[in-house]
Amino acid sequence: MSPRQIVEHMLSNDAFSRWLGIELVEVSEGNCVLRMQVREEMTNGFHILHGGVSYSLADSALAFAANTHGRHSLSVETSISHLRAVQPGEWLTARSSERKAGRRTGVYDIEILNDQQQCVALFRGHVFRTDKKWEQ
Amino acid sequence: MSPRQIVEHMLSNDAFSRWLGIELVEVSEGNCVLRMQVREEMTNGFHILHGGVSYSLADSALAFAANTHGRHSLSVETSISHLRAVQPGEWLTARSSERKAGRRTGVYDIEILNDQQQCVALFRGHVFRTDKKWEQ
Amino acid sequence: MSPRQIVEHMLSNDAFSRWLGIELVEVSEGNCVLRMQVREEMTNGFHILHGGVSYSLADSALAFAANTHGRHSLSVETSISHLRAVQPGEWLTARSSERKAGRRTGVYDIEILNDQQQCVALFRGHVFRTDKKWEQ
Amino acid sequence: MSPRQIVEHMLSNDAFSRWLGIELVEVSEGNCVLRMQVREEMTNGFHILHGGVSYSLADSALAFAANTHGRHSLSVETSISHLRAVQPGEWLTARSSERKAGRRTGVYDIEILNDQQQCVALFRGHVFRTDKKWEQ
Repeated sequence: MSPRQIVEHMLSNDAFSRWLGIELVEVSEGNCVLRMQVREEMTNGFHILHGGVSYSLADSALAFAANTHGRHSLSVETSISHLRAVQPGEWLTARSSERKAGRRTGVYDIEILNDQQQCVALFRGHVFRTDKKWEQ
Repeated sequence: MSPRQIVEHMLSNDAFSRWLGIELVEVSEGNCVLRMQVREEMTNGFHILHGGVSYSLADSALAFAANTHGRHSLSVETSISHLRAVQPGEWLTARSSERKAGRRTGVYDIEILNDQQQCVALFRGHVFRTDKKWEQ
Repeated sequence: MSPRQIVEHMLSNDAFSRWLGIELVEVSEGNCVLRMQVREEMTNGFHILHGGVSYSLADSALAFAANTHGRHSLSVETSISHLRAVQPGEWLTARSSERKAGRRTGVYDIEILNDQQQCVALFRGHVFRTDKKWEQ
Repeated sequence: MSPRQIVEHMLSNDAFSRWLGIELVEVSEGNCVLRMQVREEMTNGFHILHGGVSYSLADSALAFAANTHGRHSLSVETSISHLRAVQPGEWLTARSSERKAGRRTGVYDIEILNDQQQCVALFRGHVFRTDKKWEQ
């Protein structure tokens, strides 16, 4: 399966990413770009975006990017720093940057940007690659 | 406002935590315990719980625990390690442990346990406390 | 090689841990306890312990604990939160707690305590286990 | 005090950074570049650079960069991913990138590069800024 086929397959079976309204913007081997629009039901008690939603967008980007190499990859550790509040109605874009593409481990930086191209969150994820291949 | 009043107020206004079905089990100054049940719409492309949902549960526990001291607190950095897959239908419990309760900064460890009391995720969060007080 | 033999072998060949004055207090499969005394040459510009030294103590504890299972293990990601300043002359103890002992990946929490049993730093480390065995 | 004066003052009083042989390459408000050469006494039991040394170099870069704004800043949380082994004799360069320069909190990414401009470690640090000013 090609990187795009893998990601389209993963996204089509990913109920929570679909609830979030995640759309695939770009995909290449090792990277992907996703976007989604913030809805009212995604806000927290301060009426701004719940941090768990921006994390989820980035975590989906991590899973998709890491799996494009054709082997099942699992998240080992992830961290996120929330830099700026996000309002309902805003569109968010998650852009991955593969920092290490090892045989067994991978490291990915994912930035989340708002409509004005301001960085609202910085995410870093570490994955472990299994031997299981993606195949039709 | 008491710790319980603050958390009940935050939870009742937190649309995303309510979508997740988060229930308040215990609250004291500096800590809280939350629980929720995993639904089909929260799963990812491997048909296990999306990592963003367990993060969201832990992130709500962080926000609630940190705000019990009576001042508005904001997340600075959070990290999570996913140790074990979670299936739809399982109940998860998030239990906080306050590791630092400073004037300006706080550190919280949050464990997520499944029905069998197995740890499925380890979360650590760092908050900054503002001068803004919680008051009726 | 037994867990103790592996750690004694690693420590005896570890020039930097010896410069730090690290001593092995306890070792068992999956865990270890180390201690060291803070010297003047380990302080930073505020004349308190440089954060890199407490990190180094914890990182050695991670390496030792992770390798006790008999296979070479490599650090993938580590994080540390500095909770309290440490003065020259103080003795520090690093105590590991194995949180996941998987076939391929492991997660370890390491606490650093001062003379008064106060926690001065919280460290979490993630390792990848190779196929290479420790053998005489 | 200017950014350069602050960093030169901090470095001249920082015994551990001087033991490491850290040199100041560049400094501007919010950022700095440091370098050092790896010595035999900095290696671990695998005869490669101990992870604590690359962490220490990055942690000094964090402290210097964060303090250039003229107020005392303290490390809250730091994490590092070791991507590639480093040999004795190699020169390392740490380059900071300020990701958030808030009134109270700051976020910095620091990359460590070897002689061949390969990234050997990724470090991210979060600081809290106090009210105490740097002044002569």
